[in-house]
Amino acid sequence: MFKFNITVLGSSSAIPTTERNPTAQLINHNDHLFLIDCGEGTQVTLRKMHIHFQKINHIFISHLHGDHFFGLIGLISSMHLLGRTKKLTVYGPPDLKEILDLQLRVTWTELQYPLVFHPTQADKPEQIFDNESLSVFSFPVLHRIPTTGFIFKEKQGERRIRKEAISLFNIPLHEIASIKKGSDFRDSKGILHSNASLTIDPYPVRSYAYCADTAYFEEIIPVIKGVDLLYHETTFMQDKAANAAEKFHSTTKEAATIALKAGAKRLIIGHYSARYDDLQPLLLESREVFPQTELAYEGLKVSIGC
Amino acid sequence: MFKFNITVLGSSSAIPTTERNPTAQLINHNDHLFLIDCGEGTQVTLRKMHIHFQKINHIFISHLHGDHFFGLIGLISSMHLLGRTKKLTVYGPPDLKEILDLQLRVTWTELQYPLVFHPTQADKPEQIFDNESLSVFSFPVLHRIPTTGFIFKEKQGERRIRKEAISLFNIPLHEIASIKKGSDFRDSKGILHSNASLTIDPYPVRSYAYCADTAYFEEIIPVIKGVDLLYHETTFMQDKAANAAEKFHSTTKEAATIALKAGAKRLIIGHYSARYDDLQPLLLESREVFPQTELAYEGLKVSIGC
Repeated sequence: MFKFNITVLGSSSAIPTTERNPTAQLINHNDHLFLIDCGEGTQVTLRKMHIHFQKINHIFISHLHGDHFFGLIGLISSMHLLGRTKKLTVYGPPDLKEILDLQLRVTWTELQYPLVFHPTQADKPEQIFDNESLSVFSFPVLHRIPTTGFIFKEKQGERRIRKEAISLFNIPLHEIASIKKGSDFRDSKGILHSNASLTIDPYPVRSYAYCADTAYFEEIIPVIKGVDLLYHETTFMQDKAANAAEKFHSTTKEAATIALKAGAKRLIIGHYSARYDDLQPLLLESREVFPQTELAYEGLKVSIGC
Repeated sequence: MFKFNITVLGSSSAIPTTERNPTAQLINHNDHLFLIDCGEGTQVTLRKMHIHFQKINHIFISHLHGDHFFGLIGLISSMHLLGRTKKLTVYGPPDLKEILDLQLRVTWTELQYPLVFHPTQADKPEQIFDNESLSVFSFPVLHRIPTTGFIFKEKQGERRIRKEAISLFNIPLHEIASIKKGSDFRDSKGILHSNASLTIDPYPVRSYAYCADTAYFEEIIPVIKGVDLLYHETTFMQDKAANAAEKFHSTTKEAATIALKAGAKRLIIGHYSARYDDLQPLLLESREVFPQTELAYEGLKVSIGC
């Protein structure tokens, strides 16, 4: 089974504190590193967590509030200064390109590596990334400015051949690929072995959904249905529901309700208002609705589907 | 004597490390706070050092390399989110305004406070700030892109009245202002007291010069002549003089030579390349030329003229 985990780099909302960084998360799928959002200071947080940031090839920016992207130009610059030559792809709202271009221009920076910009749109779900084992989709959430969530979905892998079957029936190497795809196998004595007897089911596919920043928004439920791990923002506790609605943010119980209605297996909450020092009350409140809730914190690493 | 000190917020060169922040310095003159440069993460550094950043009313940006300004938009945003209504004036190269305007526009931020932009030019020295006790001048230094240093100069204060003279000669309150300006005083018995007998000299005026980023550039010497405290960048040790020249940076001995030729009283060096873990060799090398050298480090606070 592929490695599939997330690391929380920042759990604060708009104003960074001395303990909490603005939003950023690292996703590792099969040693491909993806960054979601990049608040101010993310490059230093990555260093402190001993994450080699040159291995990040894809950065997804949810929306253009500063706490989600003010660290991007610094990371892009440091990648350049440290000799990167590998392509970097940035996915985000169209205006982000103008910001990056302007800052590169005024700093007289000619990047040594290709920086590819993929504009996202916040009207409908859209596949924005694809490799042999993973797809990433953006989808609209409900915030004061155009904002997308992101969902990482593993692709169905091949059937797994039972190791003992290979030696038992003398299966030649060149047959293995087709057996993994579902073929039966006829051995040298002419005996037909059904695929079911040779293989076991593929690993279950796993998924991770990132929903920030957003008000309570039921339209995301079909998009994230059955997700293995859901990150949903919880800027406020339930007594601040009016604040949350006004600012297009969510409360603990709203996040938990989305997790419940979407049938998520686990929930991580974060993006806490700077007013909260102690986060246990937020955790307890969310667990009243959705017991499988955990708090995001700087350095939290969660394996998905384990 | 007025409070006059600097606090180093960042001492690294272009690439921040886990120990060293990109460039920023806080100047406190008579409880007026000024910020010079604002590398990524400066707002959090200010918080960690318990400096109330809403008290900063003037920010000076030397040039548009990211390690000197990528933290500015985050600081401006946090000031806004935390309810600032007081005017903030930013001084820097003209393109900085375009960067700030664009980022405020795309983040849909309508600042609640007046943000005034004062463009600097890197052709000749220019007074850019003035109050009753202090003037600030920008002046050209020599870097790859247009860059200015800044010099903070106290104004000559008034003569100081001797406290014992007030009671001894029954000096009425309304006479004090003119005595401080140099007048003699005739007491109720008609006796004339010379100003020299009533007052002592004003406090000596003090000055602080900030020279970064720059190659070795003797043209700054007349501008910073006799400065009480000089900050001069030292990205490299002397064995990397060729690197320094190529990148328009300075070495330890070059910084020290500028301090020596300018007759500075003290020198602080900083903006160290990330290649240097141990900074003692830089200090020793600079002291060979200019013994009154100290190393900049995060949190260093230096009182000027004491």
